[in-house]
Amino acid sequence: MTEAIEKEKTPDRLQSFHGFLSTGDTEGMREALADMHPAEIAVLLESLPTDQRLQAWKEVPSEQTGEVLAQVHDKVRLTLIGTMDSDELIAATENLDTDDLADLLPDMPDEVIQQLLNTMDEQNRERLETVLPYPEDSAGGLMNVDTITVRADITLDVVLRYLRRRGEIPETTDNLVVVNRTGHYLGLLPITELLTNKPDQSVAEVMQRGVEPISADTEAHEVARIFEHRDLVTAPVVDADGRLVGRITIDDVVDVIRERADHSFMGMAGLTEEEDIFAPVITSSRRRAVWLGVNLMTAFLAAWVIGLFGATIEQLVALAVLMPIVASMGGIAGSQTLTLVIRAQALGQIGASNARQLLLKELTVGFLNGLVWATVIAVVAGLWFDSVWLGAIIAIAIMINLVVAALSGTVIPLVLKKLGADPALAGGVVLTTVTDVVGFFAFLGLATLFLV
Amino acid sequence: MTEAIEKEKTPDRLQSFHGFLSTGDTEGMREALADMHPAEIAVLLESLPTDQRLQAWKEVPSEQTGEVLAQVHDKVRLTLIGTMDSDELIAATENLDTDDLADLLPDMPDEVIQQLLNTMDEQNRERLETVLPYPEDSAGGLMNVDTITVRADITLDVVLRYLRRRGEIPETTDNLVVVNRTGHYLGLLPITELLTNKPDQSVAEVMQRGVEPISADTEAHEVARIFEHRDLVTAPVVDADGRLVGRITIDDVVDVIRERADHSFMGMAGLTEEEDIFAPVITSSRRRAVWLGVNLMTAFLAAWVIGLFGATIEQLVALAVLMPIVASMGGIAGSQTLTLVIRAQALGQIGASNARQLLLKELTVGFLNGLVWATVIAVVAGLWFDSVWLGAIIAIAIMINLVVAALSGTVIPLVLKKLGADPALAGGVVLTTVTDVVGFFAFLGLATLFLV
Repeated sequence: MTEAIEKEKTPDRLQSFHGFLSTGDTEGMREALADMHPAEIAVLLESLPTDQRLQAWKEVPSEQTGEVLAQVHDKVRLTLIGTMDSDELIAATENLDTDDLADLLPDMPDEVIQQLLNTMDEQNRERLETVLPYPEDSAGGLMNVDTITVRADITLDVVLRYLRRRGEIPETTDNLVVVNRTGHYLGLLPITELLTNKPDQSVAEVMQRGVEPISADTEAHEVARIFEHRDLVTAPVVDADGRLVGRITIDDVVDVIRERADHSFMGMAGLTEEEDIFAPVITSSRRRAVWLGVNLMTAFLAAWVIGLFGATIEQLVALAVLMPIVASMGGIAGSQTLTLVIRAQALGQIGASNARQLLLKELTVGFLNGLVWATVIAVVAGLWFDSVWLGAIIAIAIMINLVVAALSGTVIPLVLKKLGADPALAGGVVLTTVTDVVGFFAFLGLATLFLV
Repeated sequence: MTEAIEKEKTPDRLQSFHGFLSTGDTEGMREALADMHPAEIAVLLESLPTDQRLQAWKEVPSEQTGEVLAQVHDKVRLTLIGTMDSDELIAATENLDTDDLADLLPDMPDEVIQQLLNTMDEQNRERLETVLPYPEDSAGGLMNVDTITVRADITLDVVLRYLRRRGEIPETTDNLVVVNRTGHYLGLLPITELLTNKPDQSVAEVMQRGVEPISADTEAHEVARIFEHRDLVTAPVVDADGRLVGRITIDDVVDVIRERADHSFMGMAGLTEEEDIFAPVITSSRRRAVWLGVNLMTAFLAAWVIGLFGATIEQLVALAVLMPIVASMGGIAGSQTLTLVIRAQALGQIGASNARQLLLKELTVGFLNGLVWATVIAVVAGLWFDSVWLGAIIAIAIMINLVVAALSGTVIPLVLKKLGADPALAGGVVLTTVTDVVGFFAFLGLATLFLV
C-alpha cells in the first residue's frame, strides 16, 4: 500500500519523466502520462523548458489534452495551443466542463471558436452562452451549468426514479437544487437526505431552505471565502433576479485559493502568479526589467539623499560604512509589519475600526525593538569607530527609522488598497523607499548637525 | 438576493461588529455571532485586540465554541481557553469531530483532558485513540473516523436499507468505503452510484476499485497535492497494513492549503502563519527581535566590507552615494529568482534534472537585465558625477551583481532544501547577504583598483 502511495509523489514522477525525456523514450513518457491526472500533467509541463514541454505534450493522451489545457497557466497554454491544428483543438475541447471551455475560448484561434460553436448541440451552446458573459474571476465564471434541479412539490420517490432513469450524476454533486416553475432558487436537497428519508416524503419537507445562493457577479475571492467559512463542497449560483444559473464546485474554488495565495507571494517580488519558470529568456527579462526599473528609481532617490550629505561623509567615512545598517533594519522591520497587514487584509480582518489599534500596537513593537537594537548597534558602532557620539547618533537614527517603518508598514497597504492598488505588488517598493530615505536622512542629517 | 449575499461579506460584518463592541451592545454582538459560521467567528476573533477579543468570546453561542476553538490559530486559542473553566471546556468539545478534538487536546489543561476521556463513551474514546498517535500535519492527523463502511458481497438494496435505518450520514460524505472482513480497504462506493444503479446489484459490481487510499503517515502537504491533482472531495486513509482507519475531507485539506500558502508568504518576512495580529506587544516584539537580529548580523557583514574600502571612499565620496544602488539592484533581481524557485519547489516542479536548465535561464535573464540597467545606471552616474570611469565601473559592478543574484536566487533555495531548512524562511536573508557583500565588494573593489 505504502508503495502505491509513494508512486504518487509528484517530484519522483517528475524525476523519472525527465529520465524518459533525456533518453528520448517516448514509450516511457506515454505510459507515465497515461497514469497521471490532468492537473499533474499540467504541473509537469510547466516544469519543463519549452522544447521538452512540446516534446512531452505530443505524448499526452488525446482524451486528456482539453483538461490539461484548462489547468496550465495562460502563458504555457498559448505555447501548447500553438502546436495544435483546428481538428485537434476541437477534439480536445469536446468533453470539457462549460466553465473550463469558457476559460479556454479566448485563447483559441478565431476559426476554431466559430467551428466549435457550429458543431455544438443546442443545449451545450446555450450553456456556454450562459457562462461566457461573466468574467473569469467571478462566481459566474467559476460555475458549471450541469446542476440537477428538482421541484419542491414532488416526492423523494419521484426524484429517486428520475435519477435512476437519468443514469448519471455529474461529478461532485452533493445537492440537487430546488427551483420553482420560473427557475428561481428555493433551496437545496442534499443527496444524503434522499438516502435517509422515507420515499413518500415530499422534497419540500426535507429540503434545506436556509442556504443562501451565491450571486453570479460575486468576485472569485469572495466565493472562496464563503466556501472556506461554510465548509462547502458545492454552492448554487443565481443571477440578479434570483434565477438559478449554475453551481460552483470546490475543486474550482481550491484553484482560486491557490492562485490568490500565489498572487500575493509572487507579487511581493513583482512577479505574477502566471509566471512560467521556463518562459523564453527575452519574455522573462522584459517583464522583470520593468520591476528592476521601478526599484532603480527608488534607489536613485536614496542615492540622491546620500548625495546631499557628501561633505559630511568626506569628513567622517564611518558614516558611509554604517549607513546601510540604518536603512536595512528599517526595511526589515517595515516589511514584517507590511506582510502582517497584507495577510490580514486578504482575510478581511482590517477595517477602519481596528486599524488605529493595530497602528498603535505596531508603533509600540517598533519602538521596543528600536530600543533593543539601537542599543546593540550603538555599542558595536561606538567601539568599532571609538566614538560615543557616533554610537548615540546611529542609535537615534535606528529608533526613528524603526518607528517610521512600523508606521509605513501599517499605513501603506491600507492607503494602497483604498487607491485600488494591490498592496502585495506595490507595498514593498513604497515601503523600502520610505525606510531608505528616512534611514539615510536621519542618520546623515543628525551626523551633519552634531558630529562634523 | 444580492442584498442577502452582500450581508455575507466578512469585512462589512467586521465593521458592524466593531460598532457593537465600541458601544458595548452585547445584544447586537450576540445576534451577529449567532448568524456567523464558526470559521467566520474565528477570523473575527483573530482580528480583535485581546480585550475586545475576550469580550466578544463571551457572546459566542456555546454550541459554537468548540468549532471556533478548533479553527483559530494556536496562540489565539490559548488566550480563549484561558478564560474557560473545566465544565465550559468539556461542553464545548462535546460535538467536535475527532480530528478537531485531537488538535485541541494538547492545549487543554490536564484535568480537563482526564475528565474528557472519562466521560467519553467507548466508541468515541476508541476513535480518539486511533487519531491521537498521528502528528497533526499528517494524513492521520487530518482524518476523521466517521467513515461509513460496507462489505463488497451485499446488494445495494441492503446498503440503502442500512442507510435509511441509520438515519444520518456524516457531513461531506460522497463515498462509502468498501472493506473486507478484516477491515482492509477494497474500494469506494460513491453514493451517486447508489442512486443510479439497480438495487439488486451487488456492491462488488458497482464499486470503484482503482482508487488508491492515502497512507496515514503521508505528510499533510502531500495530501493536499493529491486532493488538488485528483479533484477529490474525500479520500480514505489506511494504516501501514492497508486497514481502513478513517477519511480525509476537503474542508480540512483547504485549511492545509491556506496554511501552507500563509507559511511561505509570512516566512519571507520571518513570521509564522500563526502570527496573531493583536498578540501582546511583548510577545510580538520578542519574536520579531530575533529576525531583526539575524538581519543585523548580515548588515554588519556588509558594513565591514564597506569598511575595508574606507580610504577609497574618503577620496571619492561619490562611491558612498552610489553603492546602495549596486546592492539594492542585486537584492531585487535575486529575490525575483528566489521567489520563482521557491514557488516551483512548493509545486514539486524542480529536481536535479531541470535545475541546471533553470540556472542557465536565470543567468541569461540576469545577464540581459544587467546589460540594460548597467547602461542606464552608467549614463546617469557618469553625468551626475561627470566621470566616464565612474560610470564604467558601476556598470561592471551591476553586471557582476545581477549575475551573482541569479546564481544565488537559484542555488540558495535548492541547497537550503537539501539541508532540510525552509527556503521561504531563510532564503531571503542568505540571498541579500550575498548580494550586499558582492555588490559592495565589486563596486568599491573595482573603484580602488582603477579610480583612486
